[in-house]
Amino acid sequence: MKKNRVDAVLKNLEQMGLSQMLITDPLAIFYLTGRLIQPLERFYGLYLNQNGGHKIFINQLETVPEDLGVEKVRYTDTDPYLDMVAAAIDRREPLGVDKNMAARFLLPLLRENAAAGFVNASLALDRARAVKDPQERELMRRASQLNDQALAELRPFIRDGVREWELADQLQRIYKELGADGVSFPPLVAFGGNAGSGHHWPDGTRLRPGDCVLVDAGCTFEGYCSDMTRTWFYQDVTPEQQAVYDLVLRANQQAEAAVRPGVPLRELDSTARDIIAAAGFGPNFTHRLGHFIGLEDHEFGDVSASSQDAAVPGNIFSIEPGVYLEGKLGVRIEDLVLVTEEGCEVLNRLPKELEVIA
Amino acid sequence: MKKNRVDAVLKNLEQMGLSQMLITDPLAIFYLTGRLIQPLERFYGLYLNQNGGHKIFINQLETVPEDLGVEKVRYTDTDPYLDMVAAAIDRREPLGVDKNMAARFLLPLLRENAAAGFVNASLALDRARAVKDPQERELMRRASQLNDQALAELRPFIRDGVREWELADQLQRIYKELGADGVSFPPLVAFGGNAGSGHHWPDGTRLRPGDCVLVDAGCTFEGYCSDMTRTWFYQDVTPEQQAVYDLVLRANQQAEAAVRPGVPLRELDSTARDIIAAAGFGPNFTHRLGHFIGLEDHEFGDVSASSQDAAVPGNIFSIEPGVYLEGKLGVRIEDLVLVTEEGCEVLNRLPKELEVIA
Repeated sequence: MKKNRVDAVLKNLEQMGLSQMLITDPLAIFYLTGRLIQPLERFYGLYLNQNGGHKIFINQLETVPEDLGVEKVRYTDTDPYLDMVAAAIDRREPLGVDKNMAARFLLPLLRENAAAGFVNASLALDRARAVKDPQERELMRRASQLNDQALAELRPFIRDGVREWELADQLQRIYKELGADGVSFPPLVAFGGNAGSGHHWPDGTRLRPGDCVLVDAGCTFEGYCSDMTRTWFYQDVTPEQQAVYDLVLRANQQAEAAVRPGVPLRELDSTARDIIAAAGFGPNFTHRLGHFIGLEDHEFGDVSASSQDAAVPGNIFSIEPGVYLEGKLGVRIEDLVLVTEEGCEVLNRLPKELEVIA
Repeated sequence: MKKNRVDAVLKNLEQMGLSQMLITDPLAIFYLTGRLIQPLERFYGLYLNQNGGHKIFINQLETVPEDLGVEKVRYTDTDPYLDMVAAAIDRREPLGVDKNMAARFLLPLLRENAAAGFVNASLALDRARAVKDPQERELMRRASQLNDQALAELRPFIRDGVREWELADQLQRIYKELGADGVSFPPLVAFGGNAGSGHHWPDGTRLRPGDCVLVDAGCTFEGYCSDMTRTWFYQDVTPEQQAVYDLVLRANQQAEAAVRPGVPLRELDSTARDIIAAAGFGPNFTHRLGHFIGLEDHEFGDVSASSQDAAVPGNIFSIEPGVYLEGKLGVRIEDLVLVTEEGCEVLNRLPKELEVIA
């Protein structure tokens, strides 16, 4: 068990008036124990209590490291495992559960009145996960270094007639060669007009001179996600393409320069949005500026006009302004930033100056 | 809406004493409507009632086809969407929900007493999905034809020194070239001793003469999954390898020959298991004979010693006996079969005779 992380969650629970929580999200359990188990259909749960006496419930079929640092309750497929869970819960107190806990586990516990009420307490986990500890910061740095290197190695494959999905495949191959454990999400590659639509999936479109090449991708390293977008141009760039690129780059740089402890996240969003709107492209920046990231590509916490939070040291989020011209052009430039005591550390180092690939 | 499928679910619900159900699993909604929407974090639900008046709740941000054939209730991110859902539910009656419905949606409905009780009613969906209709059978045939073709095209890439993950990548590329929409699951490729462990993930192991080459893979076609395993030998085969192969092939063929309407599924499992046990390899056949498959690679329904069901026309499941010798050898031979009125149709046609790749 990662004691500091468990303590942070318990403290958050206390502020919510909760003395106990049952966690079933495998990634949240990984966060707290350092061990990943993917139980598929089977029940897998970590029970936390302010008084200690934490317990983890794991099917006998799973291989479990000895050194989990928490009492293990093993069950077989024929054991009444939810009764065993209910027996661990203090029925006189309400129970926090995580937001995705499945009905097939929750409904039987409700029927048994296993607790004095059931509460979605995911915020206790989300708030802890939004502040990365030193070990997590290092893994996030490593993941983004790999991502920088992978996108640099992808460049030679950007040539006449290559198809979007071929580049996407090639990038996945590069990630593996570099030692990443996987992708944060399937790589997005969009050429020319395809980049002008928010949700284009890499298809058989072939690269032609004058196209923009938008690549939005990330790999994982020991479970932690990277995520970066670069937009290049192939063989030629028009004045309009150049103007849009310069605008998005300025929005990206200005927003990154504004990141420091205490800055309201909505202010970062407006820093970028005001620049783009002043140039007349406000309606073409169709999404929020950024999202938090860690064990999942999109985690709790967003950098948008509706955010009520301010940055704190240890937050890691994306800065990704974009301008999309339907059927014509799309430019997005995205980095991950880590909020430090003094300002921020930009985790991506791949150059962002406009580049025309010959 | 697919009327026959909705009727089948409503009939199953009636047998469970339920007049209404709220379905939130996107694949289950795809099954009933023919339209796939992946709502990520947002609420997406289909409400069914025995009296008609079905409704589908969809966020305004989703693009939705006009012809869904069911009343649409659109909501925005700021609407009290769960109140809108609660208003549609008959509070005097219990409500069926699907097994994976998330706590963040279920708990608020419980708190509002939106229904006279909440019941995991996934069986109503699972039982309908276990019997494929003619359109589904055709899509399942197409998916398995693509899979046959893909594994045939993979053969030339099986050569000295190739790495497991290179073959897995190559297979994914072939699936795309052939027009599959994706994979049923990431392809498994295991060489030699790696195939002797149940859960080997393709790694950098290089192929050497005398290795077995186990490939377990499937693609999807219009959402429907294929799944097949073949085990080949590279350059050489020992008498022991040959004996194990012949045994597993016989178990596969005998079990497939026994598939017909009315046969208890546990009998299929024992047909294969008895053959393997008689040769002294019983403990080395470490899993059930098969699983049901359709929109998901593993669906409700299994072909194992503990199954209480008998085959009915329209069932599609795998027949996949295997023998695993730790650190040494693994052989599995898997086909999908469709139960017909007379017997069964084996959906995979790729040859299964022992093959030594030169």
